[in-house]
Amino acid sequence: MTVRDQVQEARSAARRVAIASTETKNRALRGAAALLRQRSAEVFAANEKDQSAAREAEIAQPLFKRLVVTDAKLESMATSLESVASLPDPVGTVLAKRELDTGLILEQVRVPIGVIGVIFESRPDALLQIGSLAIKSGNAVILKGGKEATESNRILHTILTEALCSTDPAFRGAVQLVETREEIATMLAMDREIDLMIPRGSNQLVKHIQDNTRIPVLGHADGVCHLYIDADADPDMAIALAVDAKTQYPAVCNAIETLLVHVDAMPLLAKLKDALADVELRGCDRTCSAIDIGPASEDDWRTEYNDMILSIRVVDSLDGAIDHINTYGSHHSDAIVTDSDDAARRFLSEVDSSSVLWNASTRFVDGFVFGLGAEVGISTGKVHARGPVGLEGLTTTQFRVRGSGQVIADYAQGRKHYTHRELQ
Amino acid sequence: MTVRDQVQEARSAARRVAIASTETKNRALRGAAALLRQRSAEVFAANEKDQSAAREAEIAQPLFKRLVVTDAKLESMATSLESVASLPDPVGTVLAKRELDTGLILEQVRVPIGVIGVIFESRPDALLQIGSLAIKSGNAVILKGGKEATESNRILHTILTEALCSTDPAFRGAVQLVETREEIATMLAMDREIDLMIPRGSNQLVKHIQDNTRIPVLGHADGVCHLYIDADADPDMAIALAVDAKTQYPAVCNAIETLLVHVDAMPLLAKLKDALADVELRGCDRTCSAIDIGPASEDDWRTEYNDMILSIRVVDSLDGAIDHINTYGSHHSDAIVTDSDDAARRFLSEVDSSSVLWNASTRFVDGFVFGLGAEVGISTGKVHARGPVGLEGLTTTQFRVRGSGQVIADYAQGRKHYTHRELQ
Repeated sequence: MTVRDQVQEARSAARRVAIASTETKNRALRGAAALLRQRSAEVFAANEKDQSAAREAEIAQPLFKRLVVTDAKLESMATSLESVASLPDPVGTVLAKRELDTGLILEQVRVPIGVIGVIFESRPDALLQIGSLAIKSGNAVILKGGKEATESNRILHTILTEALCSTDPAFRGAVQLVETREEIATMLAMDREIDLMIPRGSNQLVKHIQDNTRIPVLGHADGVCHLYIDADADPDMAIALAVDAKTQYPAVCNAIETLLVHVDAMPLLAKLKDALADVELRGCDRTCSAIDIGPASEDDWRTEYNDMILSIRVVDSLDGAIDHINTYGSHHSDAIVTDSDDAARRFLSEVDSSSVLWNASTRFVDGFVFGLGAEVGISTGKVHARGPVGLEGLTTTQFRVRGSGQVIADYAQGRKHYTHRELQ
Repeated sequence: MTVRDQVQEARSAARRVAIASTETKNRALRGAAALLRQRSAEVFAANEKDQSAAREAEIAQPLFKRLVVTDAKLESMATSLESVASLPDPVGTVLAKRELDTGLILEQVRVPIGVIGVIFESRPDALLQIGSLAIKSGNAVILKGGKEATESNRILHTILTEALCSTDPAFRGAVQLVETREEIATMLAMDREIDLMIPRGSNQLVKHIQDNTRIPVLGHADGVCHLYIDADADPDMAIALAVDAKTQYPAVCNAIETLLVHVDAMPLLAKLKDALADVELRGCDRTCSAIDIGPASEDDWRTEYNDMILSIRVVDSLDGAIDHINTYGSHHSDAIVTDSDDAARRFLSEVDSSSVLWNASTRFVDGFVFGLGAEVGISTGKVHARGPVGLEGLTTTQFRVRGSGQVIADYAQGRKHYTHRELQ
């Protein structure tokens, strides 16, 4: 079957998943969890093959680690399927209900998007996570996993598809697996058939997708996040937040890459250097005049290190901090430490990022932490979903009008008038 | 000034408009209305120049009609500015408020998008309409009007900008006017500076924009809308809706182009032909066997006539109607006439269009009619706004977190736990 056929199959299945009841969708997901536990031996065997190939190819250690499916990982994959089943179903939610005239009722209803393409890298658990979120929100999905996880992805895809089919044969085809880069290129050209692309992985991957398709793309390429220490910052809080936001998990997108320090807070720099002893610091001229660290270049301000490196810049004012972030940042997650309500209010409303924080670590920016239940990804774009995206990001809306034979001519000629009465 | 400079000016102004109070924005819009009435002589003089040039160029009559600014048109432009001022301000609305933990509060807030590019054709009133909607929703806007209205657009732009500047000098630059096709090409390439494009005009214009930019585009190219007469339709209602949806104003996007008729409702065809005597009818084979009209080709099913032409197709079932609409339609506005609740429910949930209607004319699909206050356009895309788009379509959302020094390490290591309590 060609990828074009697969996309067409997904489109047909999408129409059936879209109208499935919450109960049916949940039964399919719980069924997949049960089947996964039942057939764990097959999963481990397939994963073992991937591991051998990976060892032979001498892939990088962090990549290898993410590839391995242990007993605990398999159980957490099953649990995660069950927790997606227990999330509230966004489909069918009525966002607005309005009487336009007697017997002419408008509803705005949340509906599935249709067919979603997802490209992810070596973690095989991503297949079940994204597959289950797509089904729960009433969509079909085309999945392209990492080459390293080919065997694992195949068996996980088989298990998910079997659970879907045994719940409703019409769900067959709702989750499609593609395996080659050539197939991605074909997918990216199918902008009439695929409604949304979600690339999850490296900056390079996301940028490649964004640059090569007319399909809307949900996600973020960079996470160049900032912490700004204001003149009125509590010194201990400022240091604690800088340490947490940089070092607790430096490889993630919501860790900070640049620390901005108000000129009046420069006395803090020495203590910051001690607290960040494990971190390579790179500073602007004024920072380097205060503490003995290497210089930061213009490039540093735009770089997502994803590592134990932090650039530091002294700014003259709150405006200087806001300008720096809006110029060099990636509209992901940026925080201010300050005791000043005014400074915080200005920072939160003038920093043009999808998530902004006051006296809290940027590391809190996450769909689970934000109470969205599950995270499809974090979007830094300005249309559709922005910031951490939950199930709602996989839906759109539809206007539904129920009338009793009304014609526009009666209103155009003044025989009838709109009432526009809110019904909820 | 180059268009690049204009876009940069707009970006700077956008930051100031974004944080302006509702009162300030409304004062600017009411000021523009007053100034427009005060300087009406200049507007008429400029418009007279456009009219002369248009007469010389022998432009088509409908285009010429839309170009002319009469006393009544000028007054309605002023009134429209005032009514945008009286619309509720979407900026700052709190969409969700959640306690993540004690003293760690998350809000999701509606915020302006930033810089919006709008390309419209010869109607000069579109300049003020779009300009005022952009300002009201806290955005800056780059406007490209039709060549035929060059002089009118210049004076209207001057008036709007003067009103903005006299309200707040920092608003200078929030509304930019560009005049050449070459400038459009430059704008379309500025996907890092312009956040959203709204083309308003012909199908060709919209398609050209969609095909030539990576900036998100809001709008619709085609309006291939359908009315489906079900087996259980009330005959009189079916005929009244067909006549209204086709003939009340055939040039608009929400008028129908194709009538689908259930095979059991074929006896209605003769009456339909009489009721639609002024309309050129083109039918499928079965339709032509029942009434004496010309044949419809495969192309007809995909054509937006925008004229007194209607294609008619007989379908065997509700599924046949849904399939036809999802295959040939443009996801704009589609209606069913039926007395069957079940058929209506299936039609509304399975037709994949931005607006669907039951026993009502497709002509109701409109931002004003739907109670959105004003209409930015109608979007048939699946991300961001869908269907008639009001001021909210010119906004996005931002997550704002207010803490008291919380670090992620405490939660990662189990010393603290999320409460996830809804606060609204």
